[in-house]
Amino acid sequence: MLTQERMNELMPVYRDGLLCDTLPFWLDHAIDREQGGFFIALDRDGTVITTDKPMWAQGRFVWLLSTLYSTVAQKAEWLEAAKHGIDFIRSHGFDDDGRMFFTVTRHGQPLRKRRYIFTETFGMVALAAYAVASCEAQARQQAIDLFDLVARCITTPGLLEAKVYPETRQTKGLAVPMIMIASSQVLRETINAPGCDECIDRCIAEIGRDFVKPEFEAVLESVGPNGEFVDNFDGRMICPGHSIEAAWFILHESKHRHNDAHLRDLGLKILDWSWKRGWDDEYGGLLYYRDAKDLPCTEYWHEMKFWWPHNEAVIATLLAYQLTGDEKYARWHRCAHDWAYAHFPDPTYGEWFGYLRRDGKVSTRLKGNMWKGPFHLPRMQWYCWKLLEEMAGEKG
Amino acid sequence: MLTQERMNELMPVYRDGLLCDTLPFWLDHAIDREQGGFFIALDRDGTVITTDKPMWAQGRFVWLLSTLYSTVAQKAEWLEAAKHGIDFIRSHGFDDDGRMFFTVTRHGQPLRKRRYIFTETFGMVALAAYAVASCEAQARQQAIDLFDLVARCITTPGLLEAKVYPETRQTKGLAVPMIMIASSQVLRETINAPGCDECIDRCIAEIGRDFVKPEFEAVLESVGPNGEFVDNFDGRMICPGHSIEAAWFILHESKHRHNDAHLRDLGLKILDWSWKRGWDDEYGGLLYYRDAKDLPCTEYWHEMKFWWPHNEAVIATLLAYQLTGDEKYARWHRCAHDWAYAHFPDPTYGEWFGYLRRDGKVSTRLKGNMWKGPFHLPRMQWYCWKLLEEMAGEKG
Repeated sequence: MLTQERMNELMPVYRDGLLCDTLPFWLDHAIDREQGGFFIALDRDGTVITTDKPMWAQGRFVWLLSTLYSTVAQKAEWLEAAKHGIDFIRSHGFDDDGRMFFTVTRHGQPLRKRRYIFTETFGMVALAAYAVASCEAQARQQAIDLFDLVARCITTPGLLEAKVYPETRQTKGLAVPMIMIASSQVLRETINAPGCDECIDRCIAEIGRDFVKPEFEAVLESVGPNGEFVDNFDGRMICPGHSIEAAWFILHESKHRHNDAHLRDLGLKILDWSWKRGWDDEYGGLLYYRDAKDLPCTEYWHEMKFWWPHNEAVIATLLAYQLTGDEKYARWHRCAHDWAYAHFPDPTYGEWFGYLRRDGKVSTRLKGNMWKGPFHLPRMQWYCWKLLEEMAGEKG
Repeated sequence: MLTQERMNELMPVYRDGLLCDTLPFWLDHAIDREQGGFFIALDRDGTVITTDKPMWAQGRFVWLLSTLYSTVAQKAEWLEAAKHGIDFIRSHGFDDDGRMFFTVTRHGQPLRKRRYIFTETFGMVALAAYAVASCEAQARQQAIDLFDLVARCITTPGLLEAKVYPETRQTKGLAVPMIMIASSQVLRETINAPGCDECIDRCIAEIGRDFVKPEFEAVLESVGPNGEFVDNFDGRMICPGHSIEAAWFILHESKHRHNDAHLRDLGLKILDWSWKRGWDDEYGGLLYYRDAKDLPCTEYWHEMKFWWPHNEAVIATLLAYQLTGDEKYARWHRCAHDWAYAHFPDPTYGEWFGYLRRDGKVSTRLKGNMWKGPFHLPRMQWYCWKLLEEMAGEKG
């Protein structure tokens, strides 16, 4: 079980890890004082190795900085860095149609715009969290406008260009309802935007109805428009770290709704199945992809250990334990936490390595790229620190 | 050195490997007798695990079957299978604009069409090789028309939609001149299409001028329109197996042109540099990606051992040895051959595994997917068998 002693041990691991390691690493190395915005592609020691700027990470770092300012301490440095990011996003993040770019150059010229709306969702949580931190009304309105635009893109058939000929095959991804739950939770908890609860209800219902598959005891990454199982590489794909992330979004919602039992049971079911599918009994850690029918996956990195699924698993298991008191989740939390902390942290330059081989050896010394930035790790550290504080309060 | 004894040992490895293992594996499992065309996504034992049909592989298998029919034995089974593929390509491979689809469903409905012209190049070598095998004039003309269309797409600015905003950054890839060299060589050696020599000259000159970088002793995968070095993840990327493939295309051209010394030296330089960059001194085998400045790569599978770079290295080193008699290439050929044959072949169900971990352990039991099909391995087996026959003749 999660003893008081263990909780006392864990609290500083998360808190000090966040405040004395992760955050300084990015504040020291990521801020582009000449051209604005954040560098994200960093070598092990923080050296910038590619100056192109991914927009996901610009928004994510602003969300983090603003959230810490509002929930941890009103440090001027954090708010200034958040404003530094918001200024860059406002100047260089948007196309004329209101949609956002996916990557821009160091100077902010557009490189790529993608069909999906994920950049916009990170833009909107950045603006919402920044609105609270800065008390800037314009940011609040901008976040709400972006929320409306994203909702319109998602719910209007044909508005988002498809990758595959839609006359031949239509599929939809788990990532869309997931990101809408998480973003709506942020928009509700920061600026109390209208429509968040309805959006969350709709998206959780969609996941439960269309992506959760009892016949496989798994959550699929991609299904037909009405949840049809598509029996190919994409349709059989399970990403345990991703569905574990979905699980804690839903558990968070259950908690927000006074421990709503239906939501709690759905979140726990997803966590249980995904843990069983993803945990590597041979080497420990979470495998990246699995196949619903246990056929071979086609993505080359299917068996690698990425940092972020471990961040999600640490959150999900701790939250599940808080909500249920079930010893199983305390045990899983220890598994996920201990394996992650034994393998990912860089003892020399701080922060975490992102990509390990299946056996847990470091595959690349990279600290940041288009995907890995100041987000999953610090979000876990912040969320679990606050959760432990809450749990200590409950006991005390 | 490559002794007569070693050559006598190797010959049946390639020949029997091709005729008694690789080819039967695909003929037994890939042919879709109900809906036409070839299944490519196969499990270890040949079971079809995804019925979508990649067009690259349709064209590549037709090329192989037709080439074997013309150069090895006039087996009716091979020609029939080639026709089976050509019929599917003709019925379902082409869009109204003459361009080809990238993937189609089992029944041939289009799934994806890509901006690049690689599918068309595999279509064109399929048609050219089939024209010779079948003596069908229409296939010859169709191959020539496709060659013209591809050449027009490549040389007309703006005709191929760019992935990145071209106002911001323009880059070009090594893969385009490479595939044009290889395809032109096939079109010349099969149907003697007009314009092949000119295309080859232009593409080899472009590689030598724009992609070969003495300052890094490397061949880059992506450069600016005039060969400018782009100092980011993509611009620093080296794929040793890919540039080794380019090396043997150029060495093949040198041989075709009566051992043209300039081409031979260019091919050898590329081979030497790429071997040095790619060979893994720790575990053996060829690493997938390297960075020109030895910075970390961002692609997760950078250190994995894929089957096809080893196929290319076996060809390139054997051909370099034939052209130079340099013992170094005999040594490298032994390295590449022995490592590949110690790690890739599946002793139980035949053919090769495609994806190994850095240490040479099998990462997935998959035999075929959108990329791995009946091409690199049998091409190596065929090419090296024929090369050894030639070398035996030279000695005899």
